[in-house]
Amino acid sequence: MNQPSTNRQAINRQILLRKRPQGLPKADDFELVETQVEQPGPGQLLARNLYLSLDPAIRGWMDPDETYLPPIPLNEPMWGTTIARVEQSNVDGYEAGDLVLGLNQWVDYQIFSVDQVSKLDNIADLPAYLFLSVLGATGLTAYFGLLDIGQPKPGETVLISGAAGAVGSIVGQIAKIKGCRVVGLAGSDEKCQWLLDDLGFDAVINYKTLNNDEATIAAAIKKACPDGVDVYFDNVGGKILDAVLLCVNQFARIAFCGAISSYNSVQEVPGPNNYWQVLVKSVRIEGFVVKSYVPRFGEGIAQLSQWYQQGLLQHKEHIVPGLELAPKAFLSLFDGSNNGKLIIKIAEP
Amino acid sequence: MNQPSTNRQAINRQILLRKRPQGLPKADDFELVETQVEQPGPGQLLARNLYLSLDPAIRGWMDPDETYLPPIPLNEPMWGTTIARVEQSNVDGYEAGDLVLGLNQWVDYQIFSVDQVSKLDNIADLPAYLFLSVLGATGLTAYFGLLDIGQPKPGETVLISGAAGAVGSIVGQIAKIKGCRVVGLAGSDEKCQWLLDDLGFDAVINYKTLNNDEATIAAAIKKACPDGVDVYFDNVGGKILDAVLLCVNQFARIAFCGAISSYNSVQEVPGPNNYWQVLVKSVRIEGFVVKSYVPRFGEGIAQLSQWYQQGLLQHKEHIVPGLELAPKAFLSLFDGSNNGKLIIKIAEP
Repeated sequence: MNQPSTNRQAINRQILLRKRPQGLPKADDFELVETQVEQPGPGQLLARNLYLSLDPAIRGWMDPDETYLPPIPLNEPMWGTTIARVEQSNVDGYEAGDLVLGLNQWVDYQIFSVDQVSKLDNIADLPAYLFLSVLGATGLTAYFGLLDIGQPKPGETVLISGAAGAVGSIVGQIAKIKGCRVVGLAGSDEKCQWLLDDLGFDAVINYKTLNNDEATIAAAIKKACPDGVDVYFDNVGGKILDAVLLCVNQFARIAFCGAISSYNSVQEVPGPNNYWQVLVKSVRIEGFVVKSYVPRFGEGIAQLSQWYQQGLLQHKEHIVPGLELAPKAFLSLFDGSNNGKLIIKIAEP
Repeated sequence: MNQPSTNRQAINRQILLRKRPQGLPKADDFELVETQVEQPGPGQLLARNLYLSLDPAIRGWMDPDETYLPPIPLNEPMWGTTIARVEQSNVDGYEAGDLVLGLNQWVDYQIFSVDQVSKLDNIADLPAYLFLSVLGATGLTAYFGLLDIGQPKPGETVLISGAAGAVGSIVGQIAKIKGCRVVGLAGSDEKCQWLLDDLGFDAVINYKTLNNDEATIAAAIKKACPDGVDVYFDNVGGKILDAVLLCVNQFARIAFCGAISSYNSVQEVPGPNNYWQVLVKSVRIEGFVVKSYVPRFGEGIAQLSQWYQQGLLQHKEHIVPGLELAPKAFLSLFDGSNNGKLIIKIAEP
C-alpha cells in the first residue's frame, strides 16, 4: 500500500522562484518545471507531498533580505510547510506510509533527512490537513502568540486584526476560552458576521468601511472596546496599528505576529506614527515567530487537540486541489479573497 | 533650627507655565511670580523646597496631550520632583526639619498632604540631592529599566544611547556590575572618554561624528558590538533607534525610556522605519516610566545604596543655584550642554 507507481515516481513537478517580486508577486515570478524523482540515499527518506500550507509569511522569504530565515534562493523550489507521506525509507523507524510534517518545498516529491521533518503519529482518524491548520503551525501561532506574548487575563479586552483569518480566528476563540472580551477587525460584513455568530466574538469592526483613516478607525475601536485594549494581536500592521495605539490601556501587550498590510510594499515600511504611546502607556510590543516555540509544540498541540475535541475551536480550511494552482492561490492571501486556512492539496492522502 | 524667618516665609516665588511650547521651550513660556506663603491646614505640611530635579520628561508634561500624567495646567506652577524640608507640620509623625521627597512644583514653598510625599529617613550624612540623582528617580529609572525590562545576562551586549546622561551613565555601570559588555553612544569625545576611562564602558561611539546617517550609525554599532546587540536602553529614539534595529540579535530587548530626539518636535514623531526587524528578530520593545515601580522603590534604593557605598556607581551632578534659573537650565537638557544630573538648588539644606 501507498507505494508510488513507476509512472508517478517518474515525474516530479516543482514550482521554482524565478524572480524576486516587486510588490505583489506575479505569475511569471514562478515557474513550474518537471524533473525526475530522485532516489533517497543512506539515512534519507523519499516522500510524496500531500498538503502544502500557504501562509503570508512566505512572501517575506521571497525578498532578497534575510528575515528569520534566509531568502529562498532564486531558481530553486519555493518553500512551505507540508504534510508528506513516506514512499521509500532508508531510515530506521520510518516506513512507507508514515506521515511527516516539516518546512519543505512546493514539489511533488522530496528527499529528506529525518532532522528536517517530524513524524505525525496518533492522529486517529482526523484529516491530516488539520495539522497544517488548527492543530498545526496556524493554531500554534495563535496559541503561543496570544498566551505567551499577549498574556491575557480574564475580563481583559483582546483586540485582533485579521480576525477572520486562519490565525486570527483561532486567537479569538482561545481568548474566549480564557474569559476575555474579544473584538475582531475583519474586511467584510460576511466575515464579521461569522465572527459574531459562529465564533462568539463580543464585537466586530469591518475596517473596510472606515476609509483607511486613523481617527475613524480609532473611534470605532474605542466604541467596540469601551474599557480600552489590553492585548492587541497584530496580523496587519499599518494604519490599524496606529489607531490601536491610541486606544491601548496602560501595560497593554501587542503580539506582533505579522504585517500583511506591508508585505508587498516596495517602499520602506515605517513603524507606527503613534510609537510615542508605547512609552506613555508602558506598552510592550513583542515580535515572534512560531518556530521559536518548537520545543513547546507538544504542549501546544495537546492543548489545541483537547479544545478541538471539546468542540471549542471552529476552523475553516480553503483547500485548493493541484500543485500547479499554488502560485495563483498564494496571491489570494493578499487581496482578502481566500476564506479560511489556505492549503494546496498536492495528492490524495 | 530650620525654622523659616518671617521674611523668608512671607514671599513664595513660583515659576508658572504661561504658554505651551511650540518646539523648544522659550523664556516667555515661563513666568516667575511672587505670592504669599500660605498656612498649612489640618492634615497638611508646609515645606520649603531645597532641590528640584530637572528631567527631559518634564517637556512632555508641558504639551496639551495627556501622557502618563495629565498635562501641567496653564498658568499654574511647573512640576518637578523636589526634596523639601518641613517647616510647619499639622501631621502626626512629621515635624519641622524632616526631609520629604515627591512630585512637587517649581516653587519656594509648598503645602502638602502626606500622601504626596515620602519621608527621607536614614540618609546618614549623604548629601540630600543624591536622592534626586543616583539614589533617586534617576538611579531607579536605570535600575528597573535595565534589569526589569532589559533583563541582561552576563556576557550579553548592552547598548545605551544618551550614555553620558544622568540615567544612561548609571545604566552602563549597573550593566558592568552584571557582567555585560557595555557600549555607549554619546554626543562628544569628552563624554565618550569619561565613559571609557571613569565608568569602565567597553566601547563608545560619538554619534555626532556620524552625520545623522542611519547606515553610518549602524556600521559604527556593528563595529563596537561584534556579537550584536542583546539589550538596547533607549533614551533618544529617532535615527539611532533605526540603526540599532539593524544590529539587534534574536530575542533582543529594547527598554524604551525616552526619546529626547523628538521631545521638542512639532511634527508627528513616527516609529522606527526598521520596525519590521521587531518581527524578524523576535524583539521585545517595552516602554516604561519609573513611577510604575513605586512599590519596589525600597528594593531599588537599597541595592543602589549598597553599590554606591561600595564605590561602584560614579555619578555627576550639575547643580544650578537659584529657582529663578530653572527655565534656562531646563533648556540645557536639550542642547547637550548640561553635564550630569541637572538639579536646581532652591535653598540651603
